[in-house]
Amino acid sequence: MKICVVGAGNGGQAIAAYLAMHGHDVALFNRSRKRISGILYARKIRIEGESSGVATLSYVGTNIEKAIEGRKLIMVVVPAFAHASVAKRVAPYLEDGQVIVLNPGRTGGALEFRRVLDEMNVKKDIVIAEAQTFVFASRITGPGTVKIFKIKNAVPVAALPASKNDLLFETLPKVLPEFVVSPNVLYTSFNNIGAVFHPGALLMNAGWVESRHGNFQFYLEGISPSVARVLEKIDEERCQIARALGAEPMTAVEWIDFAYDVQGIDLYDAIHNNEGYQGIAAPVSLSNRYILEDVPMSLVPISSFGKYLGIPTPAIDSIVNIANFALRRNFWKDGRTVEHLGLANMTVDQIWNFVENGRDT
Amino acid sequence: MKICVVGAGNGGQAIAAYLAMHGHDVALFNRSRKRISGILYARKIRIEGESSGVATLSYVGTNIEKAIEGRKLIMVVVPAFAHASVAKRVAPYLEDGQVIVLNPGRTGGALEFRRVLDEMNVKKDIVIAEAQTFVFASRITGPGTVKIFKIKNAVPVAALPASKNDLLFETLPKVLPEFVVSPNVLYTSFNNIGAVFHPGALLMNAGWVESRHGNFQFYLEGISPSVARVLEKIDEERCQIARALGAEPMTAVEWIDFAYDVQGIDLYDAIHNNEGYQGIAAPVSLSNRYILEDVPMSLVPISSFGKYLGIPTPAIDSIVNIANFALRRNFWKDGRTVEHLGLANMTVDQIWNFVENGRDT
Repeated sequence: MKICVVGAGNGGQAIAAYLAMHGHDVALFNRSRKRISGILYARKIRIEGESSGVATLSYVGTNIEKAIEGRKLIMVVVPAFAHASVAKRVAPYLEDGQVIVLNPGRTGGALEFRRVLDEMNVKKDIVIAEAQTFVFASRITGPGTVKIFKIKNAVPVAALPASKNDLLFETLPKVLPEFVVSPNVLYTSFNNIGAVFHPGALLMNAGWVESRHGNFQFYLEGISPSVARVLEKIDEERCQIARALGAEPMTAVEWIDFAYDVQGIDLYDAIHNNEGYQGIAAPVSLSNRYILEDVPMSLVPISSFGKYLGIPTPAIDSIVNIANFALRRNFWKDGRTVEHLGLANMTVDQIWNFVENGRDT
Repeated sequence: MKICVVGAGNGGQAIAAYLAMHGHDVALFNRSRKRISGILYARKIRIEGESSGVATLSYVGTNIEKAIEGRKLIMVVVPAFAHASVAKRVAPYLEDGQVIVLNPGRTGGALEFRRVLDEMNVKKDIVIAEAQTFVFASRITGPGTVKIFKIKNAVPVAALPASKNDLLFETLPKVLPEFVVSPNVLYTSFNNIGAVFHPGALLMNAGWVESRHGNFQFYLEGISPSVARVLEKIDEERCQIARALGAEPMTAVEWIDFAYDVQGIDLYDAIHNNEGYQGIAAPVSLSNRYILEDVPMSLVPISSFGKYLGIPTPAIDSIVNIANFALRRNFWKDGRTVEHLGLANMTVDQIWNFVENGRDT
């Protein structure tokens, strides 16, 4: 299959190399040359870990038109705060039949991508989809070298609208069978577990992160009993909003069971029973995607849907506020909201109909 | 002077022993026998540090009537959440001319004490006052032994109403010359610096405290740059409310200069320039006065005055919320509020007049 990967970070380079190793024709686009300078001319990435060898890409560069031309599948692997700018960048060059997957969408990724394309009056017959999480745990380990630590078993993904799930599933699982169907993007957007774990746990260990350069185990030490109780409250708010929208959520405890087959009597217990968290170090700074991405693109939209539905979100709102003050940012302004996603004038039923069937035209 | 000390914790035992060592007749009351079991019969406390020797008290026990009978000065040295119950307990036995000092009042201590006495219809001619902080840094170091690490230079204290400051200053500095006059209780209540430093810094190090038993320097490591920025926001909210009430506050940076003669370009810098913070370890748990006292008795009343004045307090409110979720408490309900202090129906001018001159009768 002819595939374009947009974004050459830890995830993008891994997925590009992995797909090329598995016989696909892969183009890798990055906005700046910085991250691709080591692979720009040779177009080769060495891959280690769960897959190994040297992958050759058909294109590596900063020209989006060349990168996506004639590509059936476009895998967007950028932080969620860059989704809107990727949408703007690809809009003029999209072709009928292309399938775009946000890896992952965080909360409202596909909705935001669609809104930008609508504003730019893109009428091509394309599929926009969002994954619930990233399919690999991977890192760039050196110039032109990536390591895939783990390939996840089952990554839920949904098209917007869900009526295009069939087209999505004719394409995506052919190259990555790990992807599984999710009913619609409200499921993928509101089962965004990073929103629950990342910002709260990082902010409640801010001194430790900054004074000791993150030299502790993020999950097993950072999520102590009090931290876990705060995360449980965030999780309750998320689940309540998901249910009010009609999407049956997994609680964080259920998700740990689903993703790791690990059980616990509460969130602290489940996290501490999970060997899979052993060795995951804390970030070295608060200027990290756990905040910069998960606050504006996960917590802010969940809070905004809460306001829209009349469901209070004091735990989520408090974490967003603390993040704002800690980093002197205004994530309320920079983040995704119901208004920003173009849904403010819809009823819940209309939103459901929109994610299922698309805009009435 | 005949003095009663109410509360036999680290502070109460130190102040009782210190005053007895300095020739005063001191009674020590404690609600339960647990803390005084080692000194109940001998009535002797060994004192170390800034003062040393063995002090003999004239009474040690759990009978409040005996403890306060004929005592000119009553030094209340209990956590602020116990002020209301101390007021109820002493009310039936108060005598004309007695001076009661809350060490310290946190925010609204004297106002709450007065309200309880008013509700119990106490008409005695007494003085109620609150200190801005505790006069010693002291610890119980063994059974019947206390250590005074440091006696503070200048502890602001104010009577409620301020028209009784003269009566207060005829009494208190005679036994502890470290006490200095503050204009009124709005100054002592809104220059409560513990409110700024303690709960925010503890919650933003919750994982470190719980996973490593507080084995780090609370100020010098716990208050990292991001934590300091959140504390600065809390401090801004506190100062804005103090100014709106007519009390000129010290900022936290100004307070560090006042208390330690240490300067800084911002709060992080000032804290890290302060040798006096060297060696102060973090608490070993979140179930600590830094939360249990400073959230309901400092942050909640400051937030409540903010609502009363129409001044938003998102940083303070977020910290209170996180404390609630972390400890599964409702400090909004348990804490001091404008309503709870009996001030809700007053204008700002009426509150000022009340703290200056007392209730119009």
